[in-house]
Amino acid sequence: MPKGILESGNSTDEKPCFSLAELAEVVEGSWEGDGELRIRGVAGIREAKSGQISFLANSRYLAHVKETGASALIVNTEIDVNGISAIRVADPYLSYLKVVRLFARPFAEDHRPGISKLASVASDAKVGAGAHIGDFVHVGTGCQVGKGSTLMPGVVLLPRTIVGENSILFPNVVVREECEIGSRVIIHSGTVIGSDGFGYAQNGGKHHKIPQIGIVVIEDDVELGANVTIDRATTGITRIGRGTKIDNLVQIGHNASIGEHSIIVAQVGVSGSANIGKQVTIGGQAGIVGHIEIGAGATIAAQAGVTKTVPSGTCVSGYPARPHDQAMRVQAVLARLPELARRLKELEKEVTELRGEKPGNEGNPR
Amino acid sequence: MPKGILESGNSTDEKPCFSLAELAEVVEGSWEGDGELRIRGVAGIREAKSGQISFLANSRYLAHVKETGASALIVNTEIDVNGISAIRVADPYLSYLKVVRLFARPFAEDHRPGISKLASVASDAKVGAGAHIGDFVHVGTGCQVGKGSTLMPGVVLLPRTIVGENSILFPNVVVREECEIGSRVIIHSGTVIGSDGFGYAQNGGKHHKIPQIGIVVIEDDVELGANVTIDRATTGITRIGRGTKIDNLVQIGHNASIGEHSIIVAQVGVSGSANIGKQVTIGGQAGIVGHIEIGAGATIAAQAGVTKTVPSGTCVSGYPARPHDQAMRVQAVLARLPELARRLKELEKEVTELRGEKPGNEGNPR
Amino acid sequence: MPKGILESGNSTDEKPCFSLAELAEVVEGSWEGDGELRIRGVAGIREAKSGQISFLANSRYLAHVKETGASALIVNTEIDVNGISAIRVADPYLSYLKVVRLFARPFAEDHRPGISKLASVASDAKVGAGAHIGDFVHVGTGCQVGKGSTLMPGVVLLPRTIVGENSILFPNVVVREECEIGSRVIIHSGTVIGSDGFGYAQNGGKHHKIPQIGIVVIEDDVELGANVTIDRATTGITRIGRGTKIDNLVQIGHNASIGEHSIIVAQVGVSGSANIGKQVTIGGQAGIVGHIEIGAGATIAAQAGVTKTVPSGTCVSGYPARPHDQAMRVQAVLARLPELARRLKELEKEVTELRGEKPGNEGNPR
Repeated sequence: MPKGILESGNSTDEKPCFSLAELAEVVEGSWEGDGELRIRGVAGIREAKSGQISFLANSRYLAHVKETGASALIVNTEIDVNGISAIRVADPYLSYLKVVRLFARPFAEDHRPGISKLASVASDAKVGAGAHIGDFVHVGTGCQVGKGSTLMPGVVLLPRTIVGENSILFPNVVVREECEIGSRVIIHSGTVIGSDGFGYAQNGGKHHKIPQIGIVVIEDDVELGANVTIDRATTGITRIGRGTKIDNLVQIGHNASIGEHSIIVAQVGVSGSANIGKQVTIGGQAGIVGHIEIGAGATIAAQAGVTKTVPSGTCVSGYPARPHDQAMRVQAVLARLPELARRLKELEKEVTELRGEKPGNEGNPR
Repeated sequence: MPKGILESGNSTDEKPCFSLAELAEVVEGSWEGDGELRIRGVAGIREAKSGQISFLANSRYLAHVKETGASALIVNTEIDVNGISAIRVADPYLSYLKVVRLFARPFAEDHRPGISKLASVASDAKVGAGAHIGDFVHVGTGCQVGKGSTLMPGVVLLPRTIVGENSILFPNVVVREECEIGSRVIIHSGTVIGSDGFGYAQNGGKHHKIPQIGIVVIEDDVELGANVTIDRATTGITRIGRGTKIDNLVQIGHNASIGEHSIIVAQVGVSGSANIGKQVTIGGQAGIVGHIEIGAGATIAAQAGVTKTVPSGTCVSGYPARPHDQAMRVQAVLARLPELARRLKELEKEVTELRGEKPGNEGNPR
Repeated sequence: MPKGILESGNSTDEKPCFSLAELAEVVEGSWEGDGELRIRGVAGIREAKSGQISFLANSRYLAHVKETGASALIVNTEIDVNGISAIRVADPYLSYLKVVRLFARPFAEDHRPGISKLASVASDAKVGAGAHIGDFVHVGTGCQVGKGSTLMPGVVLLPRTIVGENSILFPNVVVREECEIGSRVIIHSGTVIGSDGFGYAQNGGKHHKIPQIGIVVIEDDVELGANVTIDRATTGITRIGRGTKIDNLVQIGHNASIGEHSIIVAQVGVSGSANIGKQVTIGGQAGIVGHIEIGAGATIAAQAGVTKTVPSGTCVSGYPARPHDQAMRVQAVLARLPELARRLKELEKEVTELRGEKPGNEGNPR
């Protein structure tokens, strides 16, 4: 049990605190105003209160400077901070993120190395040095958990799964048998890795289950959101490439392959055997049918329904997905469709008149 | 272990039973037919069997009266019940719901106060009087669980979370560190509160995680469905307003804010920093992009893709979402689009003829 | 704890191995090449390595034969296998699936009969012979688990639920009180059966919860994917018919009914009281509004938004869903919409000229 916090005095009351000058040094910027100002937290410019530091990256939001409760701001060299203490840097947002890191509670504080007495770890499982195995975690026979990895309460590893080093599995994550999780992987709560692919052979109006004996491989530095589902391959591998980040409630079908450093936003569905390239971006709620390719660097807009291969570096949107500029032109006309229909009718009337026929007299139902 | 039910005699065999006259008194209506009739359950008019009471709120469904197996009906003052015993009231559906409540098993029967010996509760966690902590529940250091709240089996509270009074967390709910759950909140199974927001800084083709050090606040009287995901803020708060009800499999991004008494139907996605007003209704599978406002009382139709701010009290639908009446007009014409294209072609031919040119001869590819 | 594997020698090293001739006998085909060839695994033709057998069902993929690393192929009687050892059969894919089964690890090996000492089973619960109850499983009062069923780690059965024979509940599945699961049912991880239906009575701008006292019935031979949610009925039953297969992250609303042998692909949403017939197919991410009928044998395309009843045997697509052939015709014209608008404008100009008016002179803003 993580009791360290209490034993060393309730550190929840000892929140970090820095002077403005100290923070300026961290981000290699120059401060103005009160360098001795005590900063106790970070927040967005509209939410920030006294004692907190915020940032402004875009002069479009300059109006917020007058209304903010922040005690200090991180800004570029040009913005007028209206007398608020400030740190001036080239890239305010990146500098803000560095400051955010200073105020983040050290993860290790809550997850000390060791195996909870309330966990169930198979006698032949290998657990690396410095790993944390929480309460009610089940580690099946033949599993391997690498050095420094954290399995939070309720995590289940079925037999012979492998987790690399310094990975974090949040509460109630499930990894099915034989699947492989790399190093520095983060998997959020409720996510299921390696459940059976959705495969049936139809016969006589019934659906007969096709055994799914492949696995899932999650490569290094991947992050998976909460309640994601990634199915094991029928045979072979369902693969999530190195450095790819997947948001909550995403579905990845069996035998799909996602390239390196791609981004998949919440509630996307990737069907079986789809082959997604590297550095692809897929917007929220988009769907990709099975057995197609999404080329490297492609962008799929939110809610798109992609039914065929997308070339590298292109952007598609809509249903069925088309090249984005083409889809935008269609959308632009679509809004005027009732007007176009009215104009067409009017024109028909005019042409009928020009032809010397009386409108409504031509026996041609329209 | 909840053994109370058995120790007091198997109450599963002692289901509630009321006479028709008793039920009429409960709903302040008048009964006709057999006032001594024993009613042992409730059901929809098409499913109801002998011994059960149903209702009819709409004369459109009058045909069901002849076919129902119900022993009694709750109806308004006008409907012909075809000789079935009945209770007559002004609002049959609301009265029916009151009767449904009588037949609902008392929740407390299955969830007696106390902490299971199979739970893990940090020594410094505070658990209020009358709370129920089930098997395999993990309550982390510094957590607070209010009076009368119920944590069912497999719930995980990471350090320093706060749960108010008389709230119910169904099995396998996860609440991450520092998040705050109000009073009389209901959270269904598998829901994840406070997982990291989906935020990365891109650099050199790779995605670098932005620490998510904010929290989630779920205000009083909120209900969250099963397998919902609500991400913690980057800094600050992701907030679900008082009395708001959220259905299953909904995604709420980091720093989003949902107003009071709103309704969000299943599989909706709300992107980061979206600001949803109070008493908003969002239909199933709709998506809201980030950083926009949905005004108070607005309605978003099912499957809509909302890409820009929606004014208060208005209704939008479609992708990209437009004012609903406008979208409906577009849809109406859309169905006739092939016909319009045909008519346009015909008209072109006629105009060509009028101009004295032979069709197909103008060297103008169409 | 499942230690059987280790006690009998590490069977993970004893993977199955068959000769080509043996496999030919299993699938009732004829072999050619090396009948003594040792086959140690199965894989798709593009992934297969030495020692593995693959298949080719379609001569369209003939080019893969030259590139495959497979040691043997299952093919029909006509395909030229380029000298690779082969088994010839009438239906290569079905034969391949038979072979896949041979290489699937026996499920029972990891899930021996018995109740884990780390499980919590109510004293009055009935557990059939040969059932496996894993670590940290909670079986509530009055539950019944049939012969040979498997409840994996973290499964929660709330009071009085019934699970039939030879069913498998993967880790962290939750079944709420009184729900009924049939025999030979498979439920994947994180799925929630019987959470409260999404029902509120609005009054004075607030939403008052309607008690949900019905149940869910999952009939025999159903398979449910991971992180699926199926809500209990308000009163009566939410029913999933025999043999129906449901993919990951699907939402089934309260009082919905799904017929027998239907297929529902990932991320579909079925609203409350929808009535889906037998042998229906619903594509991924489609949404079905409440209180409508989907006739037997109907097909709903992926991402469709179905707003009204669909007749038996028909196919619908798009939003709002229309008969598929009609929707396809609309889509075909839609892509040409900007061109149609341009042609309409051109035509208007020509007609204006024909009428002897100068274009742009008519005071009619277009």
